[in-house]
Amino acid sequence: MTRVALLGFGTVGSAVARRLTQSASAAHPQFTLTHVLDRRARQKRGLLSSDAAARIAFTDRFDDVLRSDVDVVVETIGGLDPAGRFMREALRAGKSVVTANKQVVARDGADLWRLAERQGRQFRFEAAVGGAMPIVRAVADGLAGDRITRIVGVLNGTTNAVLSLMETTGCSLEHAVATARARGLAEADPAADLGGQDAAAKLAILCGLAFGLRVDPAAIPTESAAAVTSRDLDDAAARGGTIRQIAWAEYDYRRAELTAWVAPTFVARHTIFAQARDAQNAALITGEHGGEIGISGNGAGGDATAVAIISDIAAIARDRAAVVPAPRWTANFDLLPFKFSEAF
Amino acid sequence: MTRVALLGFGTVGSAVARRLTQSASAAHPQFTLTHVLDRRARQKRGLLSSDAAARIAFTDRFDDVLRSDVDVVVETIGGLDPAGRFMREALRAGKSVVTANKQVVARDGADLWRLAERQGRQFRFEAAVGGAMPIVRAVADGLAGDRITRIVGVLNGTTNAVLSLMETTGCSLEHAVATARARGLAEADPAADLGGQDAAAKLAILCGLAFGLRVDPAAIPTESAAAVTSRDLDDAAARGGTIRQIAWAEYDYRRAELTAWVAPTFVARHTIFAQARDAQNAALITGEHGGEIGISGNGAGGDATAVAIISDIAAIARDRAAVVPAPRWTANFDLLPFKFSEAF
Repeated sequence: MTRVALLGFGTVGSAVARRLTQSASAAHPQFTLTHVLDRRARQKRGLLSSDAAARIAFTDRFDDVLRSDVDVVVETIGGLDPAGRFMREALRAGKSVVTANKQVVARDGADLWRLAERQGRQFRFEAAVGGAMPIVRAVADGLAGDRITRIVGVLNGTTNAVLSLMETTGCSLEHAVATARARGLAEADPAADLGGQDAAAKLAILCGLAFGLRVDPAAIPTESAAAVTSRDLDDAAARGGTIRQIAWAEYDYRRAELTAWVAPTFVARHTIFAQARDAQNAALITGEHGGEIGISGNGAGGDATAVAIISDIAAIARDRAAVVPAPRWTANFDLLPFKFSEAF
Repeated sequence: MTRVALLGFGTVGSAVARRLTQSASAAHPQFTLTHVLDRRARQKRGLLSSDAAARIAFTDRFDDVLRSDVDVVVETIGGLDPAGRFMREALRAGKSVVTANKQVVARDGADLWRLAERQGRQFRFEAAVGGAMPIVRAVADGLAGDRITRIVGVLNGTTNAVLSLMETTGCSLEHAVATARARGLAEADPAADLGGQDAAAKLAILCGLAFGLRVDPAAIPTESAAAVTSRDLDDAAARGGTIRQIAWAEYDYRRAELTAWVAPTFVARHTIFAQARDAQNAALITGEHGGEIGISGNGAGGDATAVAIISDIAAIARDRAAVVPAPRWTANFDLLPFKFSEAF
């Protein structure tokens, strides 16, 4: 039985909670949601069935989670702080961590990964890139036997919903943004989506997994999709394609040179990118030995993201080594002179 | 350091050996190929650089592998026997097993998986389905958090190379088969490819992973693609699509009803299936919560299959629990009255 605590109870958090508590989740009877941390814990309790809510400790104090016997902490708060700090403390307290937080993973992923390894725990973040599309596993695990040289993707569902609506209806960008917002596919301010910063953070994560590079998302050049007009899409259609926000990363191992950018780009009609409609994501991953692998799927939405999170919890539950009790560290062991990973 | 033994030294086996011994495999310095089992071990030695061959024990006796200290046995012999027996004995001797053998996995996969679990070892078979396309992981791991209801795929690279050549050149099936054979994409007798038996075995494996069902590949209805004519493809083009060998499986959980078949099928031009050319594979996996996930990639060839195998070795090497010494069983522990898996 794997005990799960949930940090945050927004769109993604509540979708995860529903999946973990509904009876149809008989598919995952081995997971129990025991804690929910939220600033408005009391109000949020009412969003679950009273039956389910009665078995869960709702709290606004992270310490309650840290001191509990949960095995896995699922972070869905978003943003850098306190989310990043919570994950670090959870790992130090001997919990495994699952997160959907692309910003923290892009900035501190390598450190958190190393910390998890020292602790004999897992740090997983399938939900940080590509929604339900299992691209993190494809790059880090499924293609571990190749040498990946290039990743090209549509990684932002909001921007894709906007551009593909403009493509099919001929409407203006403003109208497409308003529609996406009404359908819950865009935040009140979609600037980081259209601007490319969201996709750049995801691309930085993939560069880390594929090329072993630590890439600052802010260093990736971006060109905003906010300037795309219906005229641009008409022109693209006349050329046999359309426009998508493309995130591109290519690594030349011999020269140790990375090329990476995010920008609205012409794509031919038959490509996996043009075929990505609505909030879908898609990517082509090129390996030196295996050639091109394509992957696509729903890139946004609470249910799609919950699939990735629950898959991560399942992977941790399968790893016997990550659910046996671990010591709780009281000192800063980063200062100790030997590597804990060597002790295993 | 993970020590690897290779059973079989044909197209796939030799591709794996090249990857594990070439210096550019500095990407995987933690794997060492120590044994190669082949009926013509002596002649095969000459296919590797003398430098690499000098460090590898070539043998035609499986006992040499069983009694060695290798951690992982990679099976690339193919066929049911002795491949299946070798895998079982390797697991019993405390080795993890990686295989590309769709027939053995389709028939005995569940048993071998359970045996591996009892032994605290791993049994992995990414290479048995989809070549370099990591569909086994996508279904068993990346979408473990969903409830998969349908899998539709192009799963046989040979048939796809034949049909897509007929589509683009208008040639006859006989000519397309001869071309595929000349390019190393078809066996001397491609009957099991065109007939659908190869795809049915792969579909049976996916049904096991996705739906938890044990499906006899021979029970899956197949219609041969050998009867497809260039006229059929012209007709399909006129209807806005083409013909592909489609493998289809859908499971109704409420009624416990499986629908599964393999047959040449009309597919619309924009689909992932029509876009699969040459020896490519492609699949759409539908989940109750995450919607449709698409995946595509090179479905055949030694190098593509080697990517899947080396990814599996890498996954085993990451699993500390699977590389610590295990006892070698001398009695048939299947007869013991308790489950070893409960002892962990």
